[in-house]
Amino acid sequence: MTDAAPIRVSEIFGPTIQGEGALIGVSTVFVRTGGCDYRCSWCDSLHAVDSAFRETWAPMTPGAIMAEVEKLSGGRPLLVSLSGGNPATQPLGEVIRLGHARGYGFALETQGSVAKDWFSELDMLVLSPKPPSSGMEVDWTAFDACIAAGQGADMVMKIVIFDETDYDWARKVAGRYPQLPLFLQPGNHTPPPPGDDAARVDQDGLDARMRWLVDHVTRDGWFEARVLPQLHVALWGNKRGV
Amino acid sequence: MTDAAPIRVSEIFGPTIQGEGALIGVSTVFVRTGGCDYRCSWCDSLHAVDSAFRETWAPMTPGAIMAEVEKLSGGRPLLVSLSGGNPATQPLGEVIRLGHARGYGFALETQGSVAKDWFSELDMLVLSPKPPSSGMEVDWTAFDACIAAGQGADMVMKIVIFDETDYDWARKVAGRYPQLPLFLQPGNHTPPPPGDDAARVDQDGLDARMRWLVDHVTRDGWFEARVLPQLHVALWGNKRGV
Repeated sequence: MTDAAPIRVSEIFGPTIQGEGALIGVSTVFVRTGGCDYRCSWCDSLHAVDSAFRETWAPMTPGAIMAEVEKLSGGRPLLVSLSGGNPATQPLGEVIRLGHARGYGFALETQGSVAKDWFSELDMLVLSPKPPSSGMEVDWTAFDACIAAGQGADMVMKIVIFDETDYDWARKVAGRYPQLPLFLQPGNHTPPPPGDDAARVDQDGLDARMRWLVDHVTRDGWFEARVLPQLHVALWGNKRGV
Repeated sequence: MTDAAPIRVSEIFGPTIQGEGALIGVSTVFVRTGGCDYRCSWCDSLHAVDSAFRETWAPMTPGAIMAEVEKLSGGRPLLVSLSGGNPATQPLGEVIRLGHARGYGFALETQGSVAKDWFSELDMLVLSPKPPSSGMEVDWTAFDACIAAGQGADMVMKIVIFDETDYDWARKVAGRYPQLPLFLQPGNHTPPPPGDDAARVDQDGLDARMRWLVDHVTRDGWFEARVLPQLHVALWGNKRGV
């Protein structure tokens, strides 16, 4: 039973609000798994990606994860965001089943490189293909397999934009997946070095990038794209646990 | 024909993104009508409320309004946000019908003091009852009439929160309307004086109020409430036309 295997967990924290994307503003407990098949140049969660931090990723059973979520939320059901790293590399199906039985909802965000059959049990699947500035290259066959696996869940696409090249790429990708509601997000060019969450965020620069992105979308009449910043960065900087 | 009467328009601007509430991040043209039956102590749109500015409110026909919206959007359908003042005091039914025929969507935000039969034709009705800090008192009979009129539209409730009293009030109001998805928004304690949109916004103070509101919602396990700031204020201050 794959789903009974332990899950590598980098951190569980909250409740706080979801700071970005389709569920922005929704009260959420985050379960961040450790490990990732990508190494994005601007990764803002290296502590959950770089194997140098592997000893900080606790192996947890689905029951232990839900016990922690319930403790944090005082036993009141809310949205659980499964994040990473790439949470699709972990066996999370049983967590979702346990949580659903107790009234919790589940969203998962992944780059779309690894498909799991339990995607269909999610309440929301956020597919976030990484643009050229990440240094990664999307495997579209794997991405399409994620979409196929997610049938039954609400599915949205979120693309982080750092520059003109990313923007043009996002336009093409959006054209390929017109069925996915689209969220664009300016990238954080001042991500925290792992282990230093007091590192300063250039909020003025982020605001300028957000205005730039809104201007571009407006200029191009790209009205289907929803443009949202990372609220948690504006409110708490790079601080972890909020 | 009430709907053929001219509409008092304070400003039409966009496209920009909707900065707050359920449609946050969505590309939008704003049609702000002139005139309001309320005088909220912290009003951030006095230029569309105070009758001292009445001479700036152009009487426009529904056709002229839609012509301007189409010009601004390059003829591409998008979301039109009907705002004010209290847009429910204006005869907007025909604008909605004209716009729908051309593919445009319509959201309207009102305090819920005046019900119109064309509310049911909206794509989204945002009811924003004003909390005690506004100095206004909600007429719940009129508010309930707005809900009845809005059947057929997506309906949400948005409550602006300035202090503990507002927060406690919002808890009670939310309990009264569990069927309405709820959005909480920290109030802007530095609204622009009319005619001075360069007035400085205390963004640090607004961020602190947002964190305070998230902390309260989290403390109380009030997970149904979605908490969102005014993005446009963070991005453009009190500047008008964005």
